[in-house]
Amino acid sequence: MESDGKIAIENVWPELECGKFSAKAVIGDIFTVNADIFTHGTDLISADLKFRAEGSEIWESVPMEPGDNDAWTGSFEVSVTGSYEYTIEAWVDRFATQARNIASWIRGGESIDADLKVAISMMKDMALRCGKKDSAFIGKKISLISRSDPADVPELLSDPALLSIVRKYQEKKDLTTFSPILKIRSDRRKAGFSSWYELFPRSQGNKPGVSGTFGDCEKKLDYISSMGFDVLYLTPIHPIGVSERRGKNGARKAMPGDPGSPWAIGSSLGGHDAVNPELGTMDDFIHLINAAKKKGLEIALDLAFQCSPDHPYVKDHPEWFYHRPDGTIRYAENPPKKYYDIYPLNFDSPEREELWKELKRVILFWIQKGIKIFRVDNPHTKPLDFWKWIIDEIKRDHDDVIFLAEAFTRPKLMYELSKIGFSMSYTYFTWRNFDFEIREYFTELSSPELKSHFRPMLFTNTPDILPPILQNGGRPAFIMRSVLAATLSPLWGIYSGFEICENEAVPGTEEYMNSEKYEIKNRDLDAPGNIRDVITKLNAVRRSEKALQSVGNIQFHQSDNPNIIFYTRRSNDGKEVVMVAVNLNPYEIHSATVRVPLSLIGINGMEPYKVRDLLTGDLYVWHGEYNYVRLIPGERPAHILKVER
Amino acid sequence: MESDGKIAIENVWPELECGKFSAKAVIGDIFTVNADIFTHGTDLISADLKFRAEGSEIWESVPMEPGDNDAWTGSFEVSVTGSYEYTIEAWVDRFATQARNIASWIRGGESIDADLKVAISMMKDMALRCGKKDSAFIGKKISLISRSDPADVPELLSDPALLSIVRKYQEKKDLTTFSPILKIRSDRRKAGFSSWYELFPRSQGNKPGVSGTFGDCEKKLDYISSMGFDVLYLTPIHPIGVSERRGKNGARKAMPGDPGSPWAIGSSLGGHDAVNPELGTMDDFIHLINAAKKKGLEIALDLAFQCSPDHPYVKDHPEWFYHRPDGTIRYAENPPKKYYDIYPLNFDSPEREELWKELKRVILFWIQKGIKIFRVDNPHTKPLDFWKWIIDEIKRDHDDVIFLAEAFTRPKLMYELSKIGFSMSYTYFTWRNFDFEIREYFTELSSPELKSHFRPMLFTNTPDILPPILQNGGRPAFIMRSVLAATLSPLWGIYSGFEICENEAVPGTEEYMNSEKYEIKNRDLDAPGNIRDVITKLNAVRRSEKALQSVGNIQFHQSDNPNIIFYTRRSNDGKEVVMVAVNLNPYEIHSATVRVPLSLIGINGMEPYKVRDLLTGDLYVWHGEYNYVRLIPGERPAHILKVER
Repeated sequence: MESDGKIAIENVWPELECGKFSAKAVIGDIFTVNADIFTHGTDLISADLKFRAEGSEIWESVPMEPGDNDAWTGSFEVSVTGSYEYTIEAWVDRFATQARNIASWIRGGESIDADLKVAISMMKDMALRCGKKDSAFIGKKISLISRSDPADVPELLSDPALLSIVRKYQEKKDLTTFSPILKIRSDRRKAGFSSWYELFPRSQGNKPGVSGTFGDCEKKLDYISSMGFDVLYLTPIHPIGVSERRGKNGARKAMPGDPGSPWAIGSSLGGHDAVNPELGTMDDFIHLINAAKKKGLEIALDLAFQCSPDHPYVKDHPEWFYHRPDGTIRYAENPPKKYYDIYPLNFDSPEREELWKELKRVILFWIQKGIKIFRVDNPHTKPLDFWKWIIDEIKRDHDDVIFLAEAFTRPKLMYELSKIGFSMSYTYFTWRNFDFEIREYFTELSSPELKSHFRPMLFTNTPDILPPILQNGGRPAFIMRSVLAATLSPLWGIYSGFEICENEAVPGTEEYMNSEKYEIKNRDLDAPGNIRDVITKLNAVRRSEKALQSVGNIQFHQSDNPNIIFYTRRSNDGKEVVMVAVNLNPYEIHSATVRVPLSLIGINGMEPYKVRDLLTGDLYVWHGEYNYVRLIPGERPAHILKVER
Repeated sequence: MESDGKIAIENVWPELECGKFSAKAVIGDIFTVNADIFTHGTDLISADLKFRAEGSEIWESVPMEPGDNDAWTGSFEVSVTGSYEYTIEAWVDRFATQARNIASWIRGGESIDADLKVAISMMKDMALRCGKKDSAFIGKKISLISRSDPADVPELLSDPALLSIVRKYQEKKDLTTFSPILKIRSDRRKAGFSSWYELFPRSQGNKPGVSGTFGDCEKKLDYISSMGFDVLYLTPIHPIGVSERRGKNGARKAMPGDPGSPWAIGSSLGGHDAVNPELGTMDDFIHLINAAKKKGLEIALDLAFQCSPDHPYVKDHPEWFYHRPDGTIRYAENPPKKYYDIYPLNFDSPEREELWKELKRVILFWIQKGIKIFRVDNPHTKPLDFWKWIIDEIKRDHDDVIFLAEAFTRPKLMYELSKIGFSMSYTYFTWRNFDFEIREYFTELSSPELKSHFRPMLFTNTPDILPPILQNGGRPAFIMRSVLAATLSPLWGIYSGFEICENEAVPGTEEYMNSEKYEIKNRDLDAPGNIRDVITKLNAVRRSEKALQSVGNIQFHQSDNPNIIFYTRRSNDGKEVVMVAVNLNPYEIHSATVRVPLSLIGINGMEPYKVRDLLTGDLYVWHGEYNYVRLIPGERPAHILKVER
């Protein structure tokens, strides 16, 4: 006659794969838990959301509130990094039930004598369990009730001061605790809100064909931070392989002077824990880290766990690689493609334990140098259990470390990497151009499941991706795509050159012509037509508007022109809202009537209201649900609107 | 460096509350399991659905098939009652991956030598593990491949005979098993497909005011079975309390001769394991059970776990009841209503263990008399853990017992009773009249979650519910509602009197005027205007059409007139479909253009096709998606259509 508890606590959310994975939050988030909670019969129940930070033995409690159809909700603010546990407790609230019954008897004209006796005896029980002050309060209340007209009893029984004593000291009948205990991984704010700038350090010099240095990077810090970015992501800084080095535009053979791909990591000069001497010394790198920090920029490093044929691991640990039947090491291949300049690591070799530990050492090495953000190259080609292990290992001692997954792969695998621990992930954003595609994709990313763990990083471009819209749409397309990236997610980034609208591709591909992956670039960042001002403004608006700083709170609204998309973003606490209208067509002026979600922005439909465009400062007077927007590519392709109170 | 398995197996369905509850099936069902299954990289994977009947140590396996977006599916036929366990195994199919790569290299014009060597070495490995015959087959295959032109190799490697050996004997790389093991409760077919007739045994005589007997019930068996019903549900047959007995129309005091409510169970003549002597003896009752069986009717008993003040339990076990502060026993109350003729049992009293065991004894007592179907009165007012316990206890030794929950309560509590073990449940059907209400409700009941466990019993009426549509709509409403009930679920029933269109209510309520709950009724079942023929036809169609015999496979389709609802039902194996069009308006002839789901019924849009009305036998020639129906209340208010091949 054992029982699981008399109260059903079900459909708890967030609860990823039955608690196998943690939900995610950042410091300051209001974390909300929903559940269906009910029991048989008509007794009233109460429920608490219980939570505790990792390592704490004491649970904190907040009352959950019932909504429609037995659905309950509770929230608390996430205040430390690391992790939280949470669960739900529910019990039959005998006192509230008794009070409700007494009120019903009175309304029905029946005697309440018997039921009032029970209520008073409950109060006497509680008086025995609580402190002196509360006990005295109960005593007074009982004598007051005993002297009162029955009609006044219900109000006396529902005195909030009494109910708060009841909540503490009432014997919790049929107390039921949800299991399993669920978890949250809580990160510092940058994991959920940051603006990234990507560059190749070797391109930061000014002599054609000569590698720039960490010192040259320092000279760019003002430029980057003045645009409002707060993360500076460097492509790999390690020595580059020499044998099988690829040439310009990815040619099979390098010409003399070709610098090679920074992702072909490792040479006689060192591997994943070395810096390419052409960029400078380790001390120079640490100097860059600190100089960047002073400008409000945090350096992110690239983690590409693969080796050039010249990597020290190849000689020292051939057992960490794949071998052909003839004993030679297999280079990377994805039939029918072959990548001769890269050896993949075999994460499942019999000696994997040593390999995994070595890679952990590499990460800790860079953490020790001051790096806390890693952009992980192609994690979807390495085993899921490896990532789970290494992220758990690192975060156990360094809960401020952030991992960005560069996982351009099938959606479920992309999401899985997030579930097992990656802090954020690249997305399909660059390939979502039409209104229906954007609506569909970002509605999916805002679903209860995905918003609970998946943080979408929207890069407008990458060294591998120059999307057709940018190749063809000119400067207006660059502006339009930057507005989308900066307002569809709290995480966005650009890859250097975007701001000067570089758009020449290898025809028929998304590869940059003369890709920086294989050669040193010297850019004129002051070139006319650059969109630095737009980017600076976007980052400023992102910083000033809480509504643009949290994940998943996006909603699309009606627009009568498919060229214009209209959506709102909400702050995590639901209190702040901005509305965004974007002309998705970089070639034509478009206008639309958009439908404003009045209740969401706190406007009643009868009065005109003012909306301020945060990009231009212009003020518009709107009225009712349906309002008109006219958006001009290149000039004013979007509104980011906020109600002016 | 422990790992959970390298392959993600997620979003498994059915999986009710993380495996806490069993899904349900009946013998003969094709039980289908879905899951997302994927791993890192590009290796191909294979997956098996594994299952075993309770008590078996050996797992059976069926291959799962991949669909879009990493979603896999597998099915097996449920062939025994009791329960099943199921889980999923997935592994990297190294051989298939190797074969795919070889094909890619060939298409890319590359050498396959190295990869073919690996494939052949895999085959040699398998040859060592398999039997002589398979080993010889592999040997021949290897020598054939070695002699072949590379272009022919991919076809040789994808020979189904070879692949079936591979599936058995290949070493399963990264083998991952889903946990927890999930469960199915499998019932006999009647739990999922039956047609019920409810009557008051005492009303089956023919002398006004004199109780009918079990013998009188026997005389009605032909009448009931000739209409095609297969379950005969009797209201409680136990002695009825005398003190506090209620009078006609539920009057607080009974007049001399009033028989009382059969749900006020227990008197000095006995309790839940006794029969009311006015109905006959226990032997008479057993005789009725057997006589019914001969007519294809199974008797269902009412289980109402509550007592009249005269029930033997009251004297023998006062501790099983609730007590007021003055020591008297509390009658049933739902403030501000009081039910003086009923004492509720206290399922949570300190002596609950004895009470629970006694109630289990009661059920076993009736099982021993030959009863295997119980309609449970108001289970939602008793603790969930009590029901879980008693149903598990009973079904452990009697897996053919069926429990119907009469739980007219909030939806989540109603569904919970199904999850914890009730075989089927009453629903809100009687209160769903308009097309949008019916669509919405039955779409909900057909959701993946609910169809996996919730079996909806659609009674057109009950002794407590004479819905307004029947009070006001006359004979056409009775016909229309019976078509809906008989075709919206495989489980339906009527309460005696429905077939003669009894429709007089206590004004402003859904209570029958002169309710049979409080007095003996003598009906003229041959009264003109009865709809016995319609019911007979409906039950015949239900028996002949597999599409009407399974739960949840319902889909609604477009109709351009809200008075006409149009839906399809599918057999559990998906092979058979019927289309149903019903005029929901009992007062007016209506016509509509309905949109036929051509692919569902296996028709290509170009050719005319014939549909047969199973109610009338009429044949219609339809063409394309949009077709016309005209439905006449009372005469031909509905079509049940099947494509004639």
